[in-house]
Amino acid sequence: MTSFKILHKDGKARVGELTTQHGVIDTPNFIPVGTQATVKALGPRELSEIGAQIVLANTYHLMLRPGADLIESFGGLHKFMGWDKPIMTDSGGFQVFSLGVALEHGNSKVVAERGKRKRESNYVSKPRLNKITEEGVVFQSHLDGSKHILTPEKSIKIQRQLGADLIVAFDDHESSKHSKAQMLESIELTERWGLRSLEAYKRSCHDSSQILYGVIHGGTHKDLRIRSARFTDDNFDAIAIGGIYGDKRDLCRIVEWVVDEVSEDKPRHLLGIGEVEDLFNGVERGVDFFDCVAPMRRARFGSLYISPNSFINIRQSKFTADKKPIDPACGCLTCGNFSRAYLRHLYMADEILYHQLATLHNVYFIIHLVSAMRDSIKGNNFKKFKSGFLQD
Amino acid sequence: MTSFKILHKDGKARVGELTTQHGVIDTPNFIPVGTQATVKALGPRELSEIGAQIVLANTYHLMLRPGADLIESFGGLHKFMGWDKPIMTDSGGFQVFSLGVALEHGNSKVVAERGKRKRESNYVSKPRLNKITEEGVVFQSHLDGSKHILTPEKSIKIQRQLGADLIVAFDDHESSKHSKAQMLESIELTERWGLRSLEAYKRSCHDSSQILYGVIHGGTHKDLRIRSARFTDDNFDAIAIGGIYGDKRDLCRIVEWVVDEVSEDKPRHLLGIGEVEDLFNGVERGVDFFDCVAPMRRARFGSLYISPNSFINIRQSKFTADKKPIDPACGCLTCGNFSRAYLRHLYMADEILYHQLATLHNVYFIIHLVSAMRDSIKGNNFKKFKSGFLQD
Repeated sequence: MTSFKILHKDGKARVGELTTQHGVIDTPNFIPVGTQATVKALGPRELSEIGAQIVLANTYHLMLRPGADLIESFGGLHKFMGWDKPIMTDSGGFQVFSLGVALEHGNSKVVAERGKRKRESNYVSKPRLNKITEEGVVFQSHLDGSKHILTPEKSIKIQRQLGADLIVAFDDHESSKHSKAQMLESIELTERWGLRSLEAYKRSCHDSSQILYGVIHGGTHKDLRIRSARFTDDNFDAIAIGGIYGDKRDLCRIVEWVVDEVSEDKPRHLLGIGEVEDLFNGVERGVDFFDCVAPMRRARFGSLYISPNSFINIRQSKFTADKKPIDPACGCLTCGNFSRAYLRHLYMADEILYHQLATLHNVYFIIHLVSAMRDSIKGNNFKKFKSGFLQD
Repeated sequence: MTSFKILHKDGKARVGELTTQHGVIDTPNFIPVGTQATVKALGPRELSEIGAQIVLANTYHLMLRPGADLIESFGGLHKFMGWDKPIMTDSGGFQVFSLGVALEHGNSKVVAERGKRKRESNYVSKPRLNKITEEGVVFQSHLDGSKHILTPEKSIKIQRQLGADLIVAFDDHESSKHSKAQMLESIELTERWGLRSLEAYKRSCHDSSQILYGVIHGGTHKDLRIRSARFTDDNFDAIAIGGIYGDKRDLCRIVEWVVDEVSEDKPRHLLGIGEVEDLFNGVERGVDFFDCVAPMRRARFGSLYISPNSFINIRQSKFTADKKPIDPACGCLTCGNFSRAYLRHLYMADEILYHQLATLHNVYFIIHLVSAMRDSIKGNNFKKFKSGFLQD
């Protein structure tokens, strides 16, 4: 039982409200990813101030460090990380995949992530030998190579311990190198794991304090996506769309296929997606939620959003003496107080303050963009806003 | 002409006010060091909120990157770094020394710094071949090995361009490996450079917007320190004490020697000093200002202040599940919202938020300690406060 209300529609785009134990989330909305129980370089105060209504933390990372038992002993993630607004956790399935088989198969998005991650700390980049069975996945920790197991029951148990408001059923992930027959097997496994997740959820979550998402898979195969969408809608009160890596045309097609198959009154979440154009394309087709590391990761590497739909790379020497803020149209604390030249100086001098100011800007930019999308939907003006912003 | 007022004395300890173009600074006070035009991991808003009344930036670092001309084109450091309260800059002499001859001579504090600095970015650790002449110092950049020259005139010019409220005359630095005869030569050079700094200052600073400190040197030789103190007091309106590296007994003796030789109504600054015990010892002997990287650097390496006069090392496994704040007696944002366990998790996970929260705590701790010292002086209670806090 979700408490999701749709307030207004403009074409397929819709504005709504999802009510959780920790507050109401306006939709469509973007969820900043706080992998290790922190959105990189932003504290809870900064997140609240820039308008974040919810954050996402990763089950896989937190089960390995600092551990679900520890976080549970603090009364859950909200108390552990000092964030009293809604939290979402994922199932752990994507990380088991992206840090395992995907590194072998060279799936595009995952490989791109690997390249970037290598520059970050503690990252063991060789593929880990994960073993998928009916029971679940045996995998090696990316931190120390130790062996762990994730099953639907364990994923739900951990997500219960973490105490997030929105949680996700344990799913298998198709690789783009899989044949269609292999993808069908993967979907069938996701379905069986989905039902086991649902059973575990019903046993543990008597108080409806958590909303469980089922995940639609099926790669770029229309029939598989439709099958998976129908199964998910038949069994879950909240709909997540997984396994979209990269190509924007795929994203539009896949979302169109599956949205037509799921109930109007259930929240829809596009997992791992959060670039500007993808947000517009998803919202236009009826998606309510997005999560992504992109705004934070871009900031770390010097890529800063400017309106309407562009970036500057603050490392470029042309910004050395630039007195303008990152984005003159932006109302964030960074743009209100600091120049591109100062940001570039901090970046070149490898100063921590760079990360704080740059990340704050990028997350503010995306959160305010999605807020503006909501306003445009309320004004029956979404398509015009989209084409103006994307200048297409 | 300084506008320094002493409001109250308790023994030699004194409470006062130094008025600058950018506001009044209560003394005694601690100045957080923002080497590269940022106090590491703290923005201007956080600094203001925790009660910092002034920051110090390093002439040497800023002349190399991003350059004094650039900062001047922004209207000075205040505008460049978005900090509208007072700023102090140093002369550059200490960095030329500490990144040059001190690395050869193995001076204790500098070598300790070198060990730590190696772990930080961009640091070229081999001694640079700096050449000291009557004119000034030719030195190699620690960033790229390029050659630069600093003279008294150039140091004052750069500090004028940076536009700090408190500036320092260019000084030579004695090495602890120097003979007494060499130290005397060094002092004589500092005196000649001091007079040239003063002349350059008088030519450039017609508006009294900057207060110029002369620097007392002389190692641990009483007669040299007294000579240097008298010279400095005869020529400058503000007194800095330089060249104290390490031993706490030396600090007490040196401060006692020189304080007796300088005018009561001039502000006194102990350069590069800021550990808890040193602050008490300095204030007790009539010092008004301190600056140091210690609180920020300690935070980066996991060393967090707790009252009355101790540290915890947050890396230790005993803090894994510790629900207490860093210091239960502390009123900072970090201690109000986060546990030792969360801080340790952030540290172990190499998260940027660790640096923000840990640095905020350490700087708050020192700034509030110095504020409490002022209160104890006003209450004629300083010695009791000191012995209670240090538990000696």
